[in-house]
Amino acid sequence: MAALQAAPLARLVEQFERLPGIGRKTAQRLAFFVLDLPEGEAEQFAAAIVEARQKIHCCSVCQNLTDSDVCPVCAAADRDRRTICVVEDPRDVEAFERTRDYNGLYHVLHGVISPMDGVGPEQLRIKELLARVNNGEVDEVIMATNPTVEGEATAMYVSRLLKPLNVKVTRLAYGIPVGGDLQYADEVTLSRALEGRNLL
Amino acid sequence: MAALQAAPLARLVEQFERLPGIGRKTAQRLAFFVLDLPEGEAEQFAAAIVEARQKIHCCSVCQNLTDSDVCPVCAAADRDRRTICVVEDPRDVEAFERTRDYNGLYHVLHGVISPMDGVGPEQLRIKELLARVNNGEVDEVIMATNPTVEGEATAMYVSRLLKPLNVKVTRLAYGIPVGGDLQYADEVTLSRALEGRNLL
Repeated sequence: MAALQAAPLARLVEQFERLPGIGRKTAQRLAFFVLDLPEGEAEQFAAAIVEARQKIHCCSVCQNLTDSDVCPVCAAADRDRRTICVVEDPRDVEAFERTRDYNGLYHVLHGVISPMDGVGPEQLRIKELLARVNNGEVDEVIMATNPTVEGEATAMYVSRLLKPLNVKVTRLAYGIPVGGDLQYADEVTLSRALEGRNLL
Repeated sequence: MAALQAAPLARLVEQFERLPGIGRKTAQRLAFFVLDLPEGEAEQFAAAIVEARQKIHCCSVCQNLTDSDVCPVCAAADRDRRTICVVEDPRDVEAFERTRDYNGLYHVLHGVISPMDGVGPEQLRIKELLARVNNGEVDEVIMATNPTVEGEATAMYVSRLLKPLNVKVTRLAYGIPVGGDLQYADEVTLSRALEGRNLL
């Protein structure tokens, strides 16, 4: 039997297959799509990969991804520099920015403490956060890690390190999601929503 | 509000988003994966795209994808050159090769006749097939387009063009898939399986 696929095609399928959530069949479909692209567009795709990998790095202040030394949020003159919102992932920054309700700065931890996955505090950008708070300009740190066991534990861990620095540490409110349906809310969320109820 | 994503990252997300079946969220996930790759591996990925797009083209005989002038199947000395299996897509060739039961040659149409999608016979590699059969070396052409309305119509269309050339034209058998469950078989398949029943 002859080799099933020409080597360059097989190599491209293999590359797509390494991507998270992409199986063999999808990788093949993507590879065939690339073969059908005009040559210039395939080159643009390749260039976008190399360019992003080379130019994107962490902001020297907040550790969010950026292509400049200091990211646009940290560089903006009109942001409230006394509040830092601590998130796990750069995509969480985007989620907050979409609300248009937050005007402070961010700090991206790049993960959560997760002993099961071999991630300890030293792999996260915690010391960079402590250094920022230590500079004395910060009034409040909002812990906005995900409402998971690991996110919770990380928030607790970081807040314990922050408290001696004489800064207010807060956590996002738990409760029922807006537009959600009470009958589908899980018990823990509902208990938290009760616990955190507000005066009308 | 500052721009949500640095331009090189946004461009990479955009490129992934153009791929079939990849939405915004998946494109972001893939882009972040690429950012986490060692730089050499990101470059290998990019090179695989460019290389595949540049080197892969259609076999001058069977129109299957290959990086040589004539594909390994057409070039193989031990294949039966008197039988041609006509398929829609290069991936169908791989499916037949995996059976290890077929020793003839292939012809890849690169699509099916589909007026709804604006694909007429002239966009398919039909004249290349006719030319091969015209050369007089072929005994049988197996129409192995998909068992869909378009695949069916294309098989009929091509077989009408082939018959005057004095060649046997056959079609894959319809029936119940091996390992399938009769109670889940659709009526059309089951009727075809009855119709095509064989003596035990």
